[in-house]
Amino acid sequence: MSYGYIGSMKTQPGKREDVVAILLSGLDGLQQVGCIQYTVGVSQSDDVTIWVSEVWRSKEQHDASLQLPEVKDAIGRAMPMLTGDFTSEETTVQGGIGL
Amino acid sequence: MSYGYIGSMKTQPGKREDVVAILLSGLDGLQQVGCIQYTVGVSQSDDVTIWVSEVWRSKEQHDASLQLPEVKDAIGRAMPMLTGDFTSEETTVQGGIGL
Repeated sequence: MSYGYIGSMKTQPGKREDVVAILLSGLDGLQQVGCIQYTVGVSQSDDVTIWVSEVWRSKEQHDASLQLPEVKDAIGRAMPMLTGDFTSEETTVQGGIGL
Repeated sequence: MSYGYIGSMKTQPGKREDVVAILLSGLDGLQQVGCIQYTVGVSQSDDVTIWVSEVWRSKEQHDASLQLPEVKDAIGRAMPMLTGDFTSEETTVQGGIGL
């Protein structure tokens, strides 16, 4: 079964667009290492929250992706624009549309 | 921009598999009325939580889908197996993989 990850983060005021751009900058690379679905959305209830939903072929591939140089670089660029308020949920994906 | 919805629900003990089956029973219909992405996952941290991530062409199409007879029927069948603990987040989707 595929591995699902749903996470949220909050940005410093005025930085949400910049962080979204970083999150969307390396999609080809993620796909190559096992990412099936990756959706970046901005909350409609405030100006600072970003939600990311991901589906990966396996948790191992997700975890390995965090060690890629380009991913580490993206995280390093985004971090100073984040507040440190994160949520995360791990799931086992059962099915759906677009998988 | 597409409309994103991330929701969670909790089931009565032992009912999660049954509710997942209901959630996955009408996917063709949802796709026909504007659903781009629909992902059903079960939480890895307990035995009763289900997470659903959805992307729709518009919020209007999402809302209209809730009035379809087959969707109302599915909700009616699932409700008695749920505890009433729901979370939901609405987003404006900015991009990703599998959209």
